[in-house]
Amino acid sequence: MDQAQARAWLTTAVDEARQGLAEGGIPIGAALYGADGVLLGRGHNRRVQDGDPSLHAETSAFRDAGRQRTYRGTTMVTTLSPCWYCSGLVRQFGISRVVVGEARTFHGGHDWLAEHGVEIVVLDDPACAAMMEDFIAARPELWHEDIGAD
Amino acid sequence: MDQAQARAWLTTAVDEARQGLAEGGIPIGAALYGADGVLLGRGHNRRVQDGDPSLHAETSAFRDAGRQRTYRGTTMVTTLSPCWYCSGLVRQFGISRVVVGEARTFHGGHDWLAEHGVEIVVLDDPACAAMMEDFIAARPELWHEDIGAD
Repeated sequence: MDQAQARAWLTTAVDEARQGLAEGGIPIGAALYGADGVLLGRGHNRRVQDGDPSLHAETSAFRDAGRQRTYRGTTMVTTLSPCWYCSGLVRQFGISRVVVGEARTFHGGHDWLAEHGVEIVVLDDPACAAMMEDFIAARPELWHEDIGAD
Repeated sequence: MDQAQARAWLTTAVDEARQGLAEGGIPIGAALYGADGVLLGRGHNRRVQDGDPSLHAETSAFRDAGRQRTYRGTTMVTTLSPCWYCSGLVRQFGISRVVVGEARTFHGGHDWLAEHGVEIVVLDDPACAAMMEDFIAARPELWHEDIGAD
């Protein structure tokens, strides 16, 4: 896909991540765009805010989009490489494309998705990486909890 | 693990599936048991009831369990083989064991989980299989929507 389009869409996910941080949460945001480029859903990690470990940024955006008959042609945009949970979501529902803000601070399942035919765009965005680096340094226990690291 | 224990735990997941069916929903249920055998969370698919595609049975049980520092030693019990989304959940959070009611009507990611060190117990329970066979025959469009099949 067009990199300028990917970067434009990433701003929605970054806005979500910043909102999560402002709420005292984990700063990861995501947005789901339709095949026609319309925003279907957006959200951020809600572990702290809702005490809900099932709402990672991607699942939050997916939930916000509500029921859809097909995900063909859709794009999941996320500030951080998707973990196995969120990568499984993408694969199961046939989301066509994933735009990853950065994969420096965490390398999830995006290579696996690429092997299974999902188009992957890694933007290596410095602002996304800085946000996670700062957060992981400040709250390592919360970050480890969020990815199930003992 | 002990098969009698697995079958006993499966009844919790089956009760959840039946509750979902009684609500007009997709009859898949799950339960998360702790390393000490205590029930941590239980739930069922809520696509129809809540208009929420993110709540598969396993993610519903995981959510119900709330925040946990570790999933080491826990067991996810589900009436149906976990899809990629729910298999990703199990792998990411380090859930140790999955008890599968049946994998006849749908074969998800449990082989992949076994390759990655998760203990898998497939019970091939006739009641679980009959419940899904009846549901898929009655509501194929809803079933396909739930697994992202175009």
